[in-house]
Amino acid sequence: IVKEVAKLLEMKAQLGGDEGKHKFVLKTPKGTRDYSPKQMAIRERVFNVIITCFKRHGAEVIDTPVFELKETLMGKYGEDSKLIYDLKDQGGELLSLRYDLTVPFARYLAMNKITNMKRYHIAKVYRRDNPAMTRGRYREFYQCDFDIAGHFDPMIPDAECLKIVHEILSDLQLGDFLIKVNDRRILDGMFAVCGVPDSKFRMICSSVDKLDKMPWEEVRSEMVGEKGLSPEAADRIGEYVQLHGGLDLIEQLLQDPKLSQNKLAKEGLGDMKLLFEYLTLFGITGKISFDLSLARGLDYYTGVIFEAVLLQQENNHVEEPVSIGSVAGGGRYDGLVGMFDPKGRKVPCVGVSIGIERIFSILEQRLEASEEKIRTTETEVLVASAQKKLLEERLKLLSELWDAGIKAEVLYKKNPKLLNQLQYCEDTGIPLVAIVGEQELKDGVVKLRVVATREEVSVRRESLVEEIRMRMSRP
Amino acid sequence: IVKEVAKLLEMKAQLGGDEGKHKFVLKTPKGTRDYSPKQMAIRERVFNVIITCFKRHGAEVIDTPVFELKETLMGKYGEDSKLIYDLKDQGGELLSLRYDLTVPFARYLAMNKITNMKRYHIAKVYRRDNPAMTRGRYREFYQCDFDIAGHFDPMIPDAECLKIVHEILSDLQLGDFLIKVNDRRILDGMFAVCGVPDSKFRMICSSVDKLDKMPWEEVRSEMVGEKGLSPEAADRIGEYVQLHGGLDLIEQLLQDPKLSQNKLAKEGLGDMKLLFEYLTLFGITGKISFDLSLARGLDYYTGVIFEAVLLQQENNHVEEPVSIGSVAGGGRYDGLVGMFDPKGRKVPCVGVSIGIERIFSILEQRLEASEEKIRTTETEVLVASAQKKLLEERLKLLSELWDAGIKAEVLYKKNPKLLNQLQYCEDTGIPLVAIVGEQELKDGVVKLRVVATREEVSVRRESLVEEIRMRMSRP
Repeated sequence: IVKEVAKLLEMKAQLGGDEGKHKFVLKTPKGTRDYSPKQMAIRERVFNVIITCFKRHGAEVIDTPVFELKETLMGKYGEDSKLIYDLKDQGGELLSLRYDLTVPFARYLAMNKITNMKRYHIAKVYRRDNPAMTRGRYREFYQCDFDIAGHFDPMIPDAECLKIVHEILSDLQLGDFLIKVNDRRILDGMFAVCGVPDSKFRMICSSVDKLDKMPWEEVRSEMVGEKGLSPEAADRIGEYVQLHGGLDLIEQLLQDPKLSQNKLAKEGLGDMKLLFEYLTLFGITGKISFDLSLARGLDYYTGVIFEAVLLQQENNHVEEPVSIGSVAGGGRYDGLVGMFDPKGRKVPCVGVSIGIERIFSILEQRLEASEEKIRTTETEVLVASAQKKLLEERLKLLSELWDAGIKAEVLYKKNPKLLNQLQYCEDTGIPLVAIVGEQELKDGVVKLRVVATREEVSVRRESLVEEIRMRMSRP
Repeated sequence: IVKEVAKLLEMKAQLGGDEGKHKFVLKTPKGTRDYSPKQMAIRERVFNVIITCFKRHGAEVIDTPVFELKETLMGKYGEDSKLIYDLKDQGGELLSLRYDLTVPFARYLAMNKITNMKRYHIAKVYRRDNPAMTRGRYREFYQCDFDIAGHFDPMIPDAECLKIVHEILSDLQLGDFLIKVNDRRILDGMFAVCGVPDSKFRMICSSVDKLDKMPWEEVRSEMVGEKGLSPEAADRIGEYVQLHGGLDLIEQLLQDPKLSQNKLAKEGLGDMKLLFEYLTLFGITGKISFDLSLARGLDYYTGVIFEAVLLQQENNHVEEPVSIGSVAGGGRYDGLVGMFDPKGRKVPCVGVSIGIERIFSILEQRLEASEEKIRTTETEVLVASAQKKLLEERLKLLSELWDAGIKAEVLYKKNPKLLNQLQYCEDTGIPLVAIVGEQELKDGVVKLRVVATREEVSVRRESLVEEIRMRMSRP
């Protein structure tokens, strides 16, 4: 027995030893990813389009910490609060990672007593959700938010938010898209006239929110089964949520014998009409659909809500275009800032969030399918030499170029082969090579080689910077 | 007694009730801050200088998640590991917020089997440190890192890192600075010849690291008292750590009867000599000091280490300039990637981190002291009207301008007063106003007003975009 125990102990020790060796799991946390230089190049292109648009609309920019006091986030997200990442209690304050950029924005406004602001904020947010990374669903992901806070005349800022979504999706050239619009007040009015008890509004609203992923029959049985709604009420809802259209539909519903009797619904429909008038002035109603099935998950919306989806022509244009997922969303949240203000003073807000991750994955896939080669550096010239013992001369020239603002590199080798230096240019897309050699040094010149054409010219050392600048500014 | 207890309970209930009202503490977590639009404008200026420099040196860019598996960070930071933020265990993997960008970079290289890369990474890192926010010390702060990974000929990438620090600090015009340089091998060699036992190297090294904040006498008593070093050994260290200089000092130490006998020190000194030769070619030795008291806290350095400090001329140039704190640091870490590779394959690395927060606070203070007014938006033109009932016309023109790529705004009011519209331009620095009125609409023109000069011209509607572009492109 003693022998057997010793053997087992030895085996255990060995296992322990092996574990010790493999103890590093080389991965990023579940639902997260690194961005490679190529992915960063795509990311910067997309950000450029978005930031350019936000600035065109006169937005300022702010930033907030990646974590907030836990209590700041509590009670803002309804059912989704369970997806918030908490930090470990290591003494001091209880903290959570931000779930979106909207609640931190509201906290920022209340804390600084700001009643009037148009700002954008691009940063990562965190959700302990089930990741589906191939479709661009991560636990750490970027949001690009634009919001307008302040007491203004109705629907002007709301219309601007929709114009922004329209501009960004057009500029990104992602293909056809549709922006669905609804209003929480219309939804609530509709629930009331359909006979949903007040206490079940939010619950039934989150069932309606699933209509983009589930057929009506399933949503109906969730309403009646899980949520205890009467079948008659569900059927009445079922009739409304099929409706979508434009100004016509708004007019029709304003005449609807039941809805028109409901104060909330009437308010919402009146504002929706005004919104469509402004959208007509902006010339974008062609891609906007007033859609009674749009509900949006978040608790804090109080008025207009909207969501943009990309459309895909399937089956060679035989069928209707199909939605391939939401790429932007937003709405009006007039009560959120008041939740933070000690005296409950409200600051009405409306905003939009661009769902950048799905856009990244679409562009990444497209780029992979295409032949286009993305450069990941901007180096203009490689300082090279064909002979040995010229490291010092290469470094001297390199330093001159850097000090003149030229983007330049050198191979970190004492005596690199010319072929390797040229190959490096091919691999990384560097367009020019500045070659120093014994003869060139004596003559006070540098040989400048164009990588693409293999053309070589002798340039006087004192004109080199000018020559490189000229060649780089050519289209 | 019963009465008294009831009273107390009532008081307690009242207190509880009050607490309920004030339950939102309106603040950001300890050691963190928001960035206002003005602070963001400064931040973007600084980032621009830094990114331009990194790109001039041919760097790619990557990004990594804000949190890593806890085990990825374990055993990399020595004593400072206690400052790591952990996430709460909510099921699944154990996670921690990144402490720097260097360990995630090493993990990225090992995970993707990359043996050769020059990259920069600008992102926030997290340390549960004692914040001193007025001096730019936060718990959430930016790092701007540039690193070169790969097997190269000695000291060429190391010299480039120092050149980069020199370029950035010069470009930012922060005033005089000094870059201190040392080598972990010289330190270890020095400890050995001074009679420090091997087991105490790291411990004594972190005492030496405190010399920039404490006088030698205090550091000595920490070494002898807390860390149990013999007084003789401490005194021998005391003699070395006073030394600083340039090539002369390197030559002198290469002749030092004790140090020259130590293999590590000799290697380090040989490389230091080579480094200074390259720095001479780069023309930057004037601001570099080989300083034996420089130790750097982090465990993972294996070769050259360096730190840049800003200098301030105190007492009207009577005394020597005084360091007002570190603004950049870095060094060589040849073993870190190997810690992540399953087969322990090493990828030598050297890098630099720019301490952006201290730079921000200096620039912020400077800006506050100056009269300079920073714009926080880029809006070129406000679409205004002097008459009522022209909201629709304003929105139509606004939309035309946006679609032409002009940065334009409108007040979100149905009938704003012209004075308020002009005041908005003054407040936010908008240079142009496009005014629509009944007469202008009839005539097919827009009145374009220059805010600064109050000059007004009539511009034909179809030439407006061109006119605005021309005026905005003027220097």
